[in-house]
Amino acid sequence: MAYNLLKGKKGIIFGALDSNSIAWKVAEKAHEEGASFTLTNAPIAMRMGEINKLAEQCGAVVIPADATSLEDLENLFTKSLEALGGKVDFILHSIGMSPNVRKGKDYGDLNYEWFLKTIDISALSFHKIMQIAEKKDALNEGASIVALSYIAAQKAVPGYNDMAEAKAALESIARSYGLRLGPKKIRVNTVSQSPTMTTAGKGISGFDVFVDFAEKLSPLGNASAEECADYVITLFSDLTKKVTMQNLFHDGGFSCTAISDEFIQAFYSKK
Amino acid sequence: MAYNLLKGKKGIIFGALDSNSIAWKVAEKAHEEGASFTLTNAPIAMRMGEINKLAEQCGAVVIPADATSLEDLENLFTKSLEALGGKVDFILHSIGMSPNVRKGKDYGDLNYEWFLKTIDISALSFHKIMQIAEKKDALNEGASIVALSYIAAQKAVPGYNDMAEAKAALESIARSYGLRLGPKKIRVNTVSQSPTMTTAGKGISGFDVFVDFAEKLSPLGNASAEECADYVITLFSDLTKKVTMQNLFHDGGFSCTAISDEFIQAFYSKK
Amino acid sequence: MAYNLLKGKKGIIFGALDSNSIAWKVAEKAHEEGASFTLTNAPIAMRMGEINKLAEQCGAVVIPADATSLEDLENLFTKSLEALGGKVDFILHSIGMSPNVRKGKDYGDLNYEWFLKTIDISALSFHKIMQIAEKKDALNEGASIVALSYIAAQKAVPGYNDMAEAKAALESIARSYGLRLGPKKIRVNTVSQSPTMTTAGKGISGFDVFVDFAEKLSPLGNASAEECADYVITLFSDLTKKVTMQNLFHDGGFSCTAISDEFIQAFYSKK
Amino acid sequence: MAYNLLKGKKGIIFGALDSNSIAWKVAEKAHEEGASFTLTNAPIAMRMGEINKLAEQCGAVVIPADATSLEDLENLFTKSLEALGGKVDFILHSIGMSPNVRKGKDYGDLNYEWFLKTIDISALSFHKIMQIAEKKDALNEGASIVALSYIAAQKAVPGYNDMAEAKAALESIARSYGLRLGPKKIRVNTVSQSPTMTTAGKGISGFDVFVDFAEKLSPLGNASAEECADYVITLFSDLTKKVTMQNLFHDGGFSCTAISDEFIQAFYSKK
Repeated sequence: MAYNLLKGKKGIIFGALDSNSIAWKVAEKAHEEGASFTLTNAPIAMRMGEINKLAEQCGAVVIPADATSLEDLENLFTKSLEALGGKVDFILHSIGMSPNVRKGKDYGDLNYEWFLKTIDISALSFHKIMQIAEKKDALNEGASIVALSYIAAQKAVPGYNDMAEAKAALESIARSYGLRLGPKKIRVNTVSQSPTMTTAGKGISGFDVFVDFAEKLSPLGNASAEECADYVITLFSDLTKKVTMQNLFHDGGFSCTAISDEFIQAFYSKK
Repeated sequence: MAYNLLKGKKGIIFGALDSNSIAWKVAEKAHEEGASFTLTNAPIAMRMGEINKLAEQCGAVVIPADATSLEDLENLFTKSLEALGGKVDFILHSIGMSPNVRKGKDYGDLNYEWFLKTIDISALSFHKIMQIAEKKDALNEGASIVALSYIAAQKAVPGYNDMAEAKAALESIARSYGLRLGPKKIRVNTVSQSPTMTTAGKGISGFDVFVDFAEKLSPLGNASAEECADYVITLFSDLTKKVTMQNLFHDGGFSCTAISDEFIQAFYSKK
Repeated sequence: MAYNLLKGKKGIIFGALDSNSIAWKVAEKAHEEGASFTLTNAPIAMRMGEINKLAEQCGAVVIPADATSLEDLENLFTKSLEALGGKVDFILHSIGMSPNVRKGKDYGDLNYEWFLKTIDISALSFHKIMQIAEKKDALNEGASIVALSYIAAQKAVPGYNDMAEAKAALESIARSYGLRLGPKKIRVNTVSQSPTMTTAGKGISGFDVFVDFAEKLSPLGNASAEECADYVITLFSDLTKKVTMQNLFHDGGFSCTAISDEFIQAFYSKK
Repeated sequence: MAYNLLKGKKGIIFGALDSNSIAWKVAEKAHEEGASFTLTNAPIAMRMGEINKLAEQCGAVVIPADATSLEDLENLFTKSLEALGGKVDFILHSIGMSPNVRKGKDYGDLNYEWFLKTIDISALSFHKIMQIAEKKDALNEGASIVALSYIAAQKAVPGYNDMAEAKAALESIARSYGLRLGPKKIRVNTVSQSPTMTTAGKGISGFDVFVDFAEKLSPLGNASAEECADYVITLFSDLTKKVTMQNLFHDGGFSCTAISDEFIQAFYSKK
């Protein structure tokens, strides 16, 4: 069901890899809600992905961009403004990658060049996007910018590795840039989503255990990628104009639950 | 502009005193978004207020209820379900009153019967509403319950007095009841709103100073009652089904700002 | 091992029921560290307890006081200042009781008079102590006031019931009174302790499960009552003079852990 | 006054530049409390500083180390264990530097190589220290590791620039490494200190304004470098053995104050 919540709005969506991606779902919903947008991903991810199908479905232009490259981002904004016929009202940042996770490095045996790479790709990219957008005056007043985060920014999760630090930095960038863009009535927030079995999520060792644990502990169960997209739409809409610099948990209540009855029954009643 | 976000949804709205009230604005928006609801307030507040105008405007039935009285609440739910022709999908709790604040008692000279009264009216009423609703099986699956809170639950604000403890307890009740109602897919949240010059707000000594301070410090400025209503609508909608047990700041960024440039200019550049 | 951290300091310790009590351990440590203090508890608790043994051991005077009674508290401060020969440098509040928990009431079936009783005993008593102390000018400059809290103030714990709201209010009182007493250089904090198998803890249904869960999840394991006493001593000492209005987790890392390897091994490796 | 809190303990202290440094004060206090330790700083900082005076005063060996260099850190641990005659019981990380701040770059015009440098120096160095320490088995059971942080990790502060992200990452590293080292009974915490007019602090544009603001807003006023050292000593002692993964505010109550009477009087009474 659609509400026209984004009617006439223009945006850029980063990170739609395949139909499991949260960004993919956001694109579908944003399209249903009346938005037009460009889609972008790293050239290498696009080779693996199926972004063109999504683009067709949404009437969107695909513009490859490595979100760590200022040059690529400049090109992306130039082309997006052309394609959309105007400035941008919303941006979704759904980008994260850790070479240390990929290569199975233990948190006590990290490669520090890779650590910086993790930070650059997963956090600084968010700053770069906003810095380029601001310099190119590419954002409309009242624009809404959202990045996807994870509770590992607040609480230790074994296996999530240096992505925890990346998410902590990402959330900090949202606050700092939210302060900066306030006078232009632009809001910047992060959504801290339940562990989600996206293609990226599957790459994290032990992630299935954490998904199960969170499912059992969360009073409403884990939030799906599609539900996350619904929530992001509300943040892009005009109904949330004074929400900024926040990290918003979209997690079925996980973040505020110490222990749940379902969890106790699952693990303690057997004893 | 309306989106049909609450089409077919039924609710109960507590606390619409006059057209400055946040609850009043929520009622107007909920009506525009297609909801039907009953309006309720304490009998004494209704004598002072103009709730009947609002009821007419929204096609709503008014049912007086002292939210500290279990009897009144039982009657309210019985009559609401009759009037609405079914169970409830959303509830707004916008109730707060401190005799200590009203009588100008200093935080170091509190009357403790009044303190308990503050807690009973401003926090326990929220528990009572949910306990009665649950016992009467008055809530639909997927229902959304919201109470209005304030940052004094996290940070000390002189003059806010024992309302700080009431808001802290209120937010705790949201978490505890959110855990409890999770298996029924019901979410419970609080919205921590900017200081707002409602009729209630005006009763707090020094509130105008705090409003000005928050206005200067918040990157987006203070959120208005109307903007708060917009935000609450998103929480009642089907787009936020996995958000629960949260205290959501709707404050123009105040909660995440240590100091702002505008603030520095206002207060330090004069020196 | 003792360090003379509280040499010459005078205090009042509330809530030493028996040798399992945290307050009991604090009294023992405070004595070892050179403090003199009075011991107090509700008359009814003293009949059950063994506080006189502790008093002998520490050279302390016992002064019965119902911490909800202003009269009793006035008497307590008057007699304490006499017994100690001067004003007070530290206070420990370790008081909590919920009739709803005692009587096994479900969170969805609370007795609201008892709820207010829970708040009065477990939270307002902390305000009353400070209000009386301030009015009687019973606190030395630089005094340190500590109350014991629990993570249920931040996260829902089934079975902890209306004590969650009491702890939330308690922590709020610490902030509000910390603000108030700042100009007198007096600090007010709460310590959020691991679930501890005190006599009070044993009264909470399912508490043993939560203790086991927290033990497995906390990287350092649960903190014991004795370790808690050590920590409280540091907060009473002159080494923490600028720590105020904080809720300090003393929990082996529980509050910042989403999941731990030990936990995964305990619960998931069996599958 | 000394208490022998660190009698027999061995440590490494990073970041004592001159007598304004918090690390300098920690060294002095640790010495008074009976600890032996090595002092280290970046070779370049040592040329500017007066660390040798401090070393003499404390009977400490100085071992230069660039904390971003694994080689230097390996050497530091090897030499420290030799000099101290055994493994380490405590480590202080007081390291932070942002080329973007130094060169006066605006947050909307950051140099990203420098941004990564800021993160590497100010946050990853903390990880490197622990990774090397763990690999070399250089930490005693029960060791305590502390890094200094700042509230900009939670709330936006204009002028603090990319150091905000560095501090957010630093605090995340404390949590992740605290989880990791828990089984060895080692705790890892950060202390979030009031803005302090150290030589580093003076380099931040507008820092004096923020110091004044924080002084006025904090109920106890800002915490000094010396008071911070006192607090750090408690965290190194055996009295805080179950405190881990925490970010501990040592800020006179700033973090929990929305507004204070002193502040209102200073800025609003003039109007």
